[in-house]
Amino acid sequence: MMKKEKLTIVKVGGAVVEDEAQLTQLLKDFSAIEGRKLLVHGGGRRATKVAEALGVETKMVGGRRITDAKMLEVVTMVYGGLVNKNLVARLQANGVNALGLTGADMDVMRSHKRPLKDGVDFGFVGDVDRADGQMLGKLIGEGVTPIIAPLTHDGQGNILNTNADTMASETAKALAPLYDVTLIFSFEKKGVLSNPDDDKSVIPVITRSDFERYRADGTISGGMLPKIENALHAVEAGVSRVIITLATAIDGNSGTAIVGE
Amino acid sequence: MMKKEKLTIVKVGGAVVEDEAQLTQLLKDFSAIEGRKLLVHGGGRRATKVAEALGVETKMVGGRRITDAKMLEVVTMVYGGLVNKNLVARLQANGVNALGLTGADMDVMRSHKRPLKDGVDFGFVGDVDRADGQMLGKLIGEGVTPIIAPLTHDGQGNILNTNADTMASETAKALAPLYDVTLIFSFEKKGVLSNPDDDKSVIPVITRSDFERYRADGTISGGMLPKIENALHAVEAGVSRVIITLATAIDGNSGTAIVGE
Repeated sequence: MMKKEKLTIVKVGGAVVEDEAQLTQLLKDFSAIEGRKLLVHGGGRRATKVAEALGVETKMVGGRRITDAKMLEVVTMVYGGLVNKNLVARLQANGVNALGLTGADMDVMRSHKRPLKDGVDFGFVGDVDRADGQMLGKLIGEGVTPIIAPLTHDGQGNILNTNADTMASETAKALAPLYDVTLIFSFEKKGVLSNPDDDKSVIPVITRSDFERYRADGTISGGMLPKIENALHAVEAGVSRVIITLATAIDGNSGTAIVGE
Repeated sequence: MMKKEKLTIVKVGGAVVEDEAQLTQLLKDFSAIEGRKLLVHGGGRRATKVAEALGVETKMVGGRRITDAKMLEVVTMVYGGLVNKNLVARLQANGVNALGLTGADMDVMRSHKRPLKDGVDFGFVGDVDRADGQMLGKLIGEGVTPIIAPLTHDGQGNILNTNADTMASETAKALAPLYDVTLIFSFEKKGVLSNPDDDKSVIPVITRSDFERYRADGTISGGMLPKIENALHAVEAGVSRVIITLATAIDGNSGTAIVGE
């Protein structure tokens, strides 16, 4: 089998793309990544602001946005239009041949409307069913850099608001048969810390057995547990490595790498 | 030389995509077009509504929107996000492998900010410099149907609001070396009428010499003159035929065909 080409997938949250100084730095760093690449972005804060200006109330349950019909219009406008197209235009100016996409475009990611969960109706929120790596992989091979907004579709004509972390993982898994994929989650810390109060205590590498040990001895706890569990699932599904790092350190050499044994 | 494959490019205005009954019919008719196809859409009325809801004033000069920084955000959201992504999702549901694009995506259409015209500053409005048919043509060859929003970019990171008719013509010309292109402009009349008061007086075919004759004898006048002039330019640049027809008659067999001699 031929050695697979490297592909770097970066997920950035809304806070980064919505702050001009951070965004400029991110675009510079992302543009500097050598080889094939792909960006998945959020945009929640901007959506909240536009919703407010339109008089649409933002309701969150457990950190997740309740997406009624009006809020779906807002996120479709903000994620698919305002944030995505500005990222594309600015990356083009940096010499990156960017292509903005949602899951509906070329049917790259399909989802179903989330059923009631613990009595909560999240509305037009999609739980991902499948990602298609074939067309994406072909475009990437042609030198195109996909810029993915956190929206999918249900195959019945409806756009659904979708978690950007999940979309990044699913995209990485779908492309793993075609590329040597590094998936980078940008984050507000330098990586996974062995001491939450010490920013220098970044754990450089975590394998499944490391993770079980850190979990057992309490080194890793709380919100980091599902993050690393998801990263390990991606690695076990063929992604070469998942890196958790600062948004200002997406070069692939910083942060915590979650890898196979 | 191999016979070129047929490609149908349809331009629809905002009024059609914003009315649910007309939109449903359009999507059905567009989906039924056989072979390769591409859609260019407007969305001005929706942009005006969203602008109003956001307290952004709409100013028009000579039928063209003045696009200040706030209005640029609105049209980027509405054209690139709301209208484009809903068209994509609904066409996917009809079995059309749609891909939403602006001119910034894959750098398919570049423009420059319009200079002052007769003292009027149109703001962030783009006059098209060039369209790239190569990547578009390749995607179309793979069975993808591009859905193009009326936005371009200047190559320096800025999105620019761009006339959808111009984008349709420029796209058709850029694809003419690769495909046998029929460009369909949907319109509020059945075609070019020899008697404006008689909807049945559609002129079926107009060549350059027909046009000169109709212009000289006054059969065609007013706003139809630049429309047909533009269509003739497209034909003279390699587009096989331009059809002016009702939005409900985009099958390529109705309306007025503007063709070479």
